[in-house]
Amino acid sequence: MSNAGARRKAPTIHDVAREAGVSRGTVSRVLNGGHYVSPAAREAVDAAIKSTGYVVNRHARSLITGRSDSVGFLLTEPQERFFEDPNFNVLLRGCTQALAAYDIPLLLMLAGTQDERRRITRYITAGHVDGVLLVSSHSGDPVAEELRAAGVPLVACGKPIGQASKVSYVAADDRDGARDMVRFLHQSGRRRIATVTGPLDTPGGVDRLAGYREVLAELGITPDERLIEHGDYSRAGGEAAAERLLAAAPDLDAVFVASDLMAQGVLSALHKAGRRVPEDVAIGGFDDSPAALASSPELTTIRQPWDRIANEMVRVLLAQIGGEDPSAVILPTELIERRST
Amino acid sequence: MSNAGARRKAPTIHDVAREAGVSRGTVSRVLNGGHYVSPAAREAVDAAIKSTGYVVNRHARSLITGRSDSVGFLLTEPQERFFEDPNFNVLLRGCTQALAAYDIPLLLMLAGTQDERRRITRYITAGHVDGVLLVSSHSGDPVAEELRAAGVPLVACGKPIGQASKVSYVAADDRDGARDMVRFLHQSGRRRIATVTGPLDTPGGVDRLAGYREVLAELGITPDERLIEHGDYSRAGGEAAAERLLAAAPDLDAVFVASDLMAQGVLSALHKAGRRVPEDVAIGGFDDSPAALASSPELTTIRQPWDRIANEMVRVLLAQIGGEDPSAVILPTELIERRST
Repeated sequence: MSNAGARRKAPTIHDVAREAGVSRGTVSRVLNGGHYVSPAAREAVDAAIKSTGYVVNRHARSLITGRSDSVGFLLTEPQERFFEDPNFNVLLRGCTQALAAYDIPLLLMLAGTQDERRRITRYITAGHVDGVLLVSSHSGDPVAEELRAAGVPLVACGKPIGQASKVSYVAADDRDGARDMVRFLHQSGRRRIATVTGPLDTPGGVDRLAGYREVLAELGITPDERLIEHGDYSRAGGEAAAERLLAAAPDLDAVFVASDLMAQGVLSALHKAGRRVPEDVAIGGFDDSPAALASSPELTTIRQPWDRIANEMVRVLLAQIGGEDPSAVILPTELIERRST
Repeated sequence: MSNAGARRKAPTIHDVAREAGVSRGTVSRVLNGGHYVSPAAREAVDAAIKSTGYVVNRHARSLITGRSDSVGFLLTEPQERFFEDPNFNVLLRGCTQALAAYDIPLLLMLAGTQDERRRITRYITAGHVDGVLLVSSHSGDPVAEELRAAGVPLVACGKPIGQASKVSYVAADDRDGARDMVRFLHQSGRRRIATVTGPLDTPGGVDRLAGYREVLAELGITPDERLIEHGDYSRAGGEAAAERLLAAAPDLDAVFVASDLMAQGVLSALHKAGRRVPEDVAIGGFDDSPAALASSPELTTIRQPWDRIANEMVRVLLAQIGGEDPSAVILPTELIERRST
């Protein structure tokens, strides 16, 4: 066979590995979705695929591997909440970007009703995505358990409550963040510190309230249930909760609110009641979402490390798709001081 | 065989059809995704499946039919635009509801960058969805053409510009809506009517400007290019366009703005310039999106029939999945008079 003939032979995966200066295993991992491959190695392999003319039939391969090379971002909240709460936008962008480094597309799944959850669970368990990033799962929500039972790799944002079995999750340290805020309000001279909690079937609702109670107990302050009201993480819910607080405990001088969006509603209720912020009442939020900067005054709040949360969710999910056992990641928060305290 | 034995025999599709009082073909269509089946017939079949105990293996069937029984909602805009523009929320909800009647889940695909479009096109053409609802495709966007070439059933929202081949679409009558608004502004006594257009590589950008020009020509008004500025459908883009208009044509007494969100920006620019709306300048929007009611003053605007658009997009897409040729649907708009004129 002449050299010219040899050159016409279809290039193999070995040719690609030699050209890229990596092992055949690395090429194979790139071809199988790029899991566990650095972006740099991936680029070298992609370049080598082009220069050698290696032809890879992705569809044929996905039939063989049974992989879709895609990930779902499943939000089990009503569609309206998705558009109202800027946290979702930030988290979604972070996850999209983290997956982009692996060339994996993200499918967004909004399933606010039971029927929607049934349909999307059917779609997921049929194998159309390799794994699921699960966001905002209330404790009564059986989706996590159903997906886990079906063997679907899964990572929740926030610690799942009441799950019968182990589910991976990534969360900010809600309790510690709440402790920081309540301590800060007390240190700045506030003595009647109220709180608007999140829903008590969500981890943020439970743990941020726990942090609030702990710090007051440590400070030797007698618990006063009139200072505790529950919200639903919406702006309107925050406003209604603040109205109830003002009626039950008109002498409050600070409110720790378990989300920035609810804090916007609290600001609105205080404004209507003629209370000045921060002169009469200090407001501390939670999230450091875009809502914190859109508020007037801008909110002192607890920053959730959304970029890290997104990166870790993607990392843990890809590891699970690769066969690893579930794991949990807790990330520290940071108090951001602005004008509302 | 005893009757008891006969009763234990696994029920067949014939048993389901008899129980539901429909043909075997209808049962089959329900089992294959419910296309071309009325919600009522679907319910009867679902009830019969339960009462007979008929077992249908959806996953096995989808392997046989090659169907995923799902539809993608593909937005080729940056993620920020998706969250900013309330039109997308309204359209998404309408499409989700229209598909729910057929028990079909909707997958949301945000593909604002070229890489994201490449990844999602790969996912779609691998057969993970049966068809695509395509939203906000600029003319330079090759996604529609690529999907069509791959044989993916496709319906665009708005008339695709510059597509080499026939693509189904559903659109409001942009030109007619624009004509109504400009005629209305003229009839209410305005004589220096400016416009802020959408991007000129979008159908709404082109056709709403065409309607504006036509009416002025019919009224015998000499065209004045200083009265025309272009926006990008964002609030900030509307504000910047209005500032340019005020500099170039300070005597303007009305602005027809090609979207309500841009009109919010125009209101903001006029407010900063000390112009009163509607006393000094009348503002007419387009969309009747939630932004129209959130504006101060509330916007006179052109209502896009979003629910009908969503229903028609789903109807045309399911027909195409069922084998029909592409078609276009144009729906009439309606002028809604509020406080900005």
